[in-house]
Amino acid sequence: MQALYAHAIDPDQQWVVPPIMEELKKKAREVGLWNLFLPGLSGFSQLEYAPMAEEMGRCPFASEVFNCSAPDTEPAVASSDATNIQCTITPSNHGDHYVVNGRKWWTSGAGDPRCAVAIVMGVTNPDADRLHRHSMILVPMATPEVRKIRPLTVFGYNDSPHGHYEVEFDQVKVPARNLILGEGRGFEIAQGRLGPGRIHHCMRTIGLSERALELMTQRAVSRRAFGHRLAWHQTVRVSIAESRLELDQSRLLVLRAAHAIDTLGTKAARKEIAGIKVVVANMGCRVIDRAIQIFGGAGVSNDVPLASWYAGVRSLRIADGPDIVHLETVAKEELKHQSKL
Amino acid sequence: MQALYAHAIDPDQQWVVPPIMEELKKKAREVGLWNLFLPGLSGFSQLEYAPMAEEMGRCPFASEVFNCSAPDTEPAVASSDATNIQCTITPSNHGDHYVVNGRKWWTSGAGDPRCAVAIVMGVTNPDADRLHRHSMILVPMATPEVRKIRPLTVFGYNDSPHGHYEVEFDQVKVPARNLILGEGRGFEIAQGRLGPGRIHHCMRTIGLSERALELMTQRAVSRRAFGHRLAWHQTVRVSIAESRLELDQSRLLVLRAAHAIDTLGTKAARKEIAGIKVVVANMGCRVIDRAIQIFGGAGVSNDVPLASWYAGVRSLRIADGPDIVHLETVAKEELKHQSKL
Amino acid sequence: MQALYAHAIDPDQQWVVPPIMEELKKKAREVGLWNLFLPGLSGFSQLEYAPMAEEMGRCPFASEVFNCSAPDTEPAVASSDATNIQCTITPSNHGDHYVVNGRKWWTSGAGDPRCAVAIVMGVTNPDADRLHRHSMILVPMATPEVRKIRPLTVFGYNDSPHGHYEVEFDQVKVPARNLILGEGRGFEIAQGRLGPGRIHHCMRTIGLSERALELMTQRAVSRRAFGHRLAWHQTVRVSIAESRLELDQSRLLVLRAAHAIDTLGTKAARKEIAGIKVVVANMGCRVIDRAIQIFGGAGVSNDVPLASWYAGVRSLRIADGPDIVHLETVAKEELKHQSKL
Amino acid sequence: MQALYAHAIDPDQQWVVPPIMEELKKKAREVGLWNLFLPGLSGFSQLEYAPMAEEMGRCPFASEVFNCSAPDTEPAVASSDATNIQCTITPSNHGDHYVVNGRKWWTSGAGDPRCAVAIVMGVTNPDADRLHRHSMILVPMATPEVRKIRPLTVFGYNDSPHGHYEVEFDQVKVPARNLILGEGRGFEIAQGRLGPGRIHHCMRTIGLSERALELMTQRAVSRRAFGHRLAWHQTVRVSIAESRLELDQSRLLVLRAAHAIDTLGTKAARKEIAGIKVVVANMGCRVIDRAIQIFGGAGVSNDVPLASWYAGVRSLRIADGPDIVHLETVAKEELKHQSKL
Repeated sequence: MQALYAHAIDPDQQWVVPPIMEELKKKAREVGLWNLFLPGLSGFSQLEYAPMAEEMGRCPFASEVFNCSAPDTEPAVASSDATNIQCTITPSNHGDHYVVNGRKWWTSGAGDPRCAVAIVMGVTNPDADRLHRHSMILVPMATPEVRKIRPLTVFGYNDSPHGHYEVEFDQVKVPARNLILGEGRGFEIAQGRLGPGRIHHCMRTIGLSERALELMTQRAVSRRAFGHRLAWHQTVRVSIAESRLELDQSRLLVLRAAHAIDTLGTKAARKEIAGIKVVVANMGCRVIDRAIQIFGGAGVSNDVPLASWYAGVRSLRIADGPDIVHLETVAKEELKHQSKL
Repeated sequence: MQALYAHAIDPDQQWVVPPIMEELKKKAREVGLWNLFLPGLSGFSQLEYAPMAEEMGRCPFASEVFNCSAPDTEPAVASSDATNIQCTITPSNHGDHYVVNGRKWWTSGAGDPRCAVAIVMGVTNPDADRLHRHSMILVPMATPEVRKIRPLTVFGYNDSPHGHYEVEFDQVKVPARNLILGEGRGFEIAQGRLGPGRIHHCMRTIGLSERALELMTQRAVSRRAFGHRLAWHQTVRVSIAESRLELDQSRLLVLRAAHAIDTLGTKAARKEIAGIKVVVANMGCRVIDRAIQIFGGAGVSNDVPLASWYAGVRSLRIADGPDIVHLETVAKEELKHQSKL
Repeated sequence: MQALYAHAIDPDQQWVVPPIMEELKKKAREVGLWNLFLPGLSGFSQLEYAPMAEEMGRCPFASEVFNCSAPDTEPAVASSDATNIQCTITPSNHGDHYVVNGRKWWTSGAGDPRCAVAIVMGVTNPDADRLHRHSMILVPMATPEVRKIRPLTVFGYNDSPHGHYEVEFDQVKVPARNLILGEGRGFEIAQGRLGPGRIHHCMRTIGLSERALELMTQRAVSRRAFGHRLAWHQTVRVSIAESRLELDQSRLLVLRAAHAIDTLGTKAARKEIAGIKVVVANMGCRVIDRAIQIFGGAGVSNDVPLASWYAGVRSLRIADGPDIVHLETVAKEELKHQSKL
Repeated sequence: MQALYAHAIDPDQQWVVPPIMEELKKKAREVGLWNLFLPGLSGFSQLEYAPMAEEMGRCPFASEVFNCSAPDTEPAVASSDATNIQCTITPSNHGDHYVVNGRKWWTSGAGDPRCAVAIVMGVTNPDADRLHRHSMILVPMATPEVRKIRPLTVFGYNDSPHGHYEVEFDQVKVPARNLILGEGRGFEIAQGRLGPGRIHHCMRTIGLSERALELMTQRAVSRRAFGHRLAWHQTVRVSIAESRLELDQSRLLVLRAAHAIDTLGTKAARKEIAGIKVVVANMGCRVIDRAIQIFGGAGVSNDVPLASWYAGVRSLRIADGPDIVHLETVAKEELKHQSKL
């Protein structure tokens, strides 16, 4: 842990992956804690995997150690409205390759020197209906026509060594076999991955929020102000109690959604999958914000990780569709459900 | 239903129990839907009983039909701090009876002509420690020294025919055998009843809130304003979605608490029992308040039941201890738990 | 005061105006505190009148004593969308009278035996544009074709002796001279009255909320629980501080709106007039709700006036257009303003 | 502006003051817009200065251009409880100098190469009462015993070129004449500066929040999603309206506080001075957070300044005492005031 933090604050090392990571991964693989994420591969149901994701969420780099990162290098869609996707994937005349053109924003992980391949979503079939217009293709990052324009920050954090980049694809030629599943199936792929990825991310946020609550209570019992431990102050205790109640409720909701995916499938569970995104991200923001307030100046600084956690969880209210998009899904399904009663 | 509402709005009938109630109760008893509440009697666990309580909560008088009212005529403690209890239960010299003196506020059910017995909590052992000072005793309401002083209202509702009364006990002689369990065991009795009663009340509030959400969505699809159905307006949809998410989270939390009581016992589940009280009552207030807003003028009137439901659920944030008392319990247990990690 | 409360709780007297009211009005008129409300008559600007309205708001019946009730018997439009108005005002063939047909909901004051005249808004010109379709007419309540169908309650309160009624107008013949200003000018009248009426109502709500804050602080210093005065508990102090800050902000906003009406006119001040409605009613609900919580059981009962105040102020979030309608006005004006920058 | 932003993102330049700043300052001084901040010097009352502070707040570096920075290099007290101050200022035996020892956290501006002098608060009179224990002294930063240990970040921002540093004072000898006003007068100085500094900071935050609202509305009319401009979506309009109403209320409250300082003095205005701190910082967080949400991914990035503004304003809920300390002051004064009624 100390080694990792020392690495993280060295400006010359920030885009270099700490060597200890590979050692930890080796150990994890040896004891069989590897690839837990994919239900098909691991044999775990969503409900069984969920507590593991929470446990890993308590430590920002744990998912990587156990090779359980959800596909964070996702097709970067800088808009909740996918029709805004401008990138094109054009077949060559001979059909043996595609040409990719466009700019991707928020390409997560592009800063990592080990990032060898990007999954790009773009338009292949402009005349098809809205859901069959896009495809996904694997693009080697080492291609000269792929240009990392600049790193983006999230509330001032560059999230090195993974990072978030704006990336330009300028007439990038890619072999036709790199196209995933077939033309026009981009949305289908995105949808299928959505449910399990959501459980993974939500449970990680819950794990992180539990850590924030732990830090909050530790601070409350150890720090004194105005002649008393912070925990003596009633509003501090209310912050602790409300955080506990919100955390527990949101975890139960995610576990229910995981069970719904396991038993009903991703499509039938779409209301649950939409709902947990809003609930968990907002819960996380509130819990971490309370912890920051109780830590005072240290809470916003780089001495404790709370501010960087806040930045990450706040972004979840936007990433993969802002709150309102998911609330609309819940409302739509509820109206449909009620009209049948 | 119609018969009951017609009865309810007739001022001459308001303190008379509608005859149809006894018919419904007879039917319920015949088909075996009777006394479902008490786990010991019914054979149901808390977790099994919980969904029945929710279903009964959808209709304010259903609990009575199935003889599943929680002991609503409870020891009326008009303060979350029980040391404020002033009522005394003094043994006679010969030990064959007790003399009850005091005033009880919020004696729920005292308006009901069938209310034959009151359970009164009072001080028997003033010198004992805080938890062994009080006892409970059964007091026949027909005794002349028991005087119903006046009905209390809740936001303007008198909740007839059950009602809430201020009741005076002026030198009431009660046989010694009416004392429950023994002197000084008042708190013990109250505590034991607390967990199951809490599950019952919380699930009923959840059932009522589900009804409010149903009414809200029905209104949203049937009522038009400014050229559109209300459901066309985005803020209405957000109200529906948020209500659904809050309802589901609170239900899961109560079911977890029910399971904790079943498996760990009431004492070990005290953090869960405290938490659900705050979560459910506040959730209910928010959901019903949103429904009122969507109904407009009808929402605050007697044309729809929402305003009276709000009055009832708002009172739950106070009854049996205000929110802050239960938040304190959650915080205390959380601090204890974290300090062991 | 005592006389009035004694009168109010006597069921036989509830629709009778207490005699003391007329004595108080006589005194007020003698000392010149009369008709302060109408700027034209009184000589007071909106800004000057505002603090008087706040002072009168501290006591629910004070406005009547000083003959400063805003026109509470308003055209009862049970919808924020005036195109929902169904009532018709049809000219007779000879042009000497109109025939009024329709049902009015929420006809405030109709329960008062002194209520001699109703101002009714209805459609006279169905083919005119949206803003010139309606007219206002004075209808004598004593006409047999005017039928008070039933009283409505607000959270269980019937607000006697004024009350809110559903009233039916069935072929009511009214002299043509009773039409106010002329056909098709209903909206114009409503708009003109809107600004001053809004200041009046908002300042009264502020006065009432100040009373709630006073009651809250008095309770906080006089009542003890768990060995301390309530004010010792930090969350109680936070309730007091937040109420003070919200009250002061909302008052300043209303005074600014009053100044805008005085200097720019009602039309140019429409953004301010819309905004204060939302801000003040929501502030009032929060302040009174906090007071209720601090009073515990007494807070929801008829022993203190808080629950009835809550009922009244909660209704203000609906009356004369729900919150969202006024927020839309503010947003529209803001977008217009910003686009000019 | 462009020149400044280009400078800001060049890592080699980040702790160098951009040359254009000195040019702008020269121009400002020439036209007499200089030193507006200090009422004594400028001739402006607090109420007159307030709108200038708001205007300068719209641009983060404007205060510096007009030499109107409040004393941002303040005595760094990393706790709202000043008794936590550990730094000592010990007189030498001969009385001709003091020796400063201690560590200061959050020494704002220490990164600026032009920062020549630090004002340090420390204990001179450990046996005096709580309010006369501390003194302030001017310490030249160039002294070798003053060591800048490390920069602190606020939500990942280092706020270069001014920065926030942890600074160590290790046996720093300072001439006795550098002590401000006299021994034991540290609190007196801090208090006197408090009121005007608070107005300055609050009005700047209001100016910044106005900019956030402008950006929000510009985005709302220019960006499209799901076939409509963002402003077409009702929740976006609600965000705009609520931000306008909260902004206007908080500004009026600060102007009232400024007037109270001008007419009653800082001490009598302490309730107002405490209140605006809480109101404005929380308002600013809400307004900027809404703007971030409407900007989506751009909102949390370095492409628009919203996330960095959020970081700054969120810190204001902690700096110079967390919210709860100021709410306590308001509550205390309110309880005192009410008890006199």
